[in-house]
Amino acid sequence: MKILLIGGGGTLGTALRETLLGRGHDVLTVGRSSGDLRHDISDPAQITALYGKAGAVDAVVSAAGDVPWKPLTEMTPQDYRAAFDGKVLSQMELVRQGVPHVSERGSFTLISGVLAREPVVTGSAASMANGAVEAFVRAAAIELAPQRINVVSPTVFTEDLDKYGAYFPGLPSVDLRDVAAAYVRSVEGARTGQVYALP
Amino acid sequence: MKILLIGGGGTLGTALRETLLGRGHDVLTVGRSSGDLRHDISDPAQITALYGKAGAVDAVVSAAGDVPWKPLTEMTPQDYRAAFDGKVLSQMELVRQGVPHVSERGSFTLISGVLAREPVVTGSAASMANGAVEAFVRAAAIELAPQRINVVSPTVFTEDLDKYGAYFPGLPSVDLRDVAAAYVRSVEGARTGQVYALP
Repeated sequence: MKILLIGGGGTLGTALRETLLGRGHDVLTVGRSSGDLRHDISDPAQITALYGKAGAVDAVVSAAGDVPWKPLTEMTPQDYRAAFDGKVLSQMELVRQGVPHVSERGSFTLISGVLAREPVVTGSAASMANGAVEAFVRAAAIELAPQRINVVSPTVFTEDLDKYGAYFPGLPSVDLRDVAAAYVRSVEGARTGQVYALP
Repeated sequence: MKILLIGGGGTLGTALRETLLGRGHDVLTVGRSSGDLRHDISDPAQITALYGKAGAVDAVVSAAGDVPWKPLTEMTPQDYRAAFDGKVLSQMELVRQGVPHVSERGSFTLISGVLAREPVVTGSAASMANGAVEAFVRAAAIELAPQRINVVSPTVFTEDLDKYGAYFPGLPSVDLRDVAAAYVRSVEGARTGQVYALP
């Protein structure tokens, strides 16, 4: 398959690229400052430009989403808007604008995260964004068929425990290879409207 | 208790006002074009003005949230932003800005809806917004304590079946009195971080 991979330069994106290449797919990476195509998907107009350049694809895989982390009372309307633009609107527009460019039985695989179901302090914007993406995926699935859409919702990566483990006390971590496997399950499988929660 | 009721002029808001008054509370209603105070809560600056006028309250109860309904491929970035501003940011800002105005063990009760868990065609913006609000409530609860926050997530109202029943084929409806009871459970009870899904 020809796969458009958004956020291919990050920790997860790098692992996904290797996994998808290893399974024989063609992978076109997209990033703000690295990748085959350079676009900031938090801007809907850049998504239009991105699809114009990428041509027809079989799958769109997203590993990108930025949200601010702050105590609730220190958040601002701008912070919440940034979370929406950076992780929710960006991924919804990847789907909506992607429909004419993705093959008839192609798929979209988005990213959310454990904070949708298991909140942590300073994570209210992340929780909001993840909950939004997961509910959107369930809704989009019934309108996109036979195209498919799923979302991978991982906890903290085992490989990131040194950096971020303190934010997730007692939560199990997940290995990047298992997260990549969930994306493969979405891209190569046949289900739609699923939230692949890890672990 | 002194209760600030947002959206008091709507179908649900009217039922809530009667129920809360009947239980001996003081109710201050807020609406764009009706109510004791006139403010559009989709504008964060108007929420600041609202709390400035309302003074100290024991509970904030929201029955307000507008989202566009359209087929997914006809949605625009502006539609998704309108859904975010109208139902998500509005309610998050009611909470964030409300913290200093609500009593120490006071509460916030927000509104989401069945589309968070049970999507229908043309409802992708509504699903997104509802999922965002529910995840936000779980996250806010751990930072607000001892203040409390819950969300009521109703299906279509029995009283609205004539108008909206066709959008929810086969889904059970819920009577407004049962929705109002869920708000009472949130306001007068002691739990926090709960999604009261109806039915």
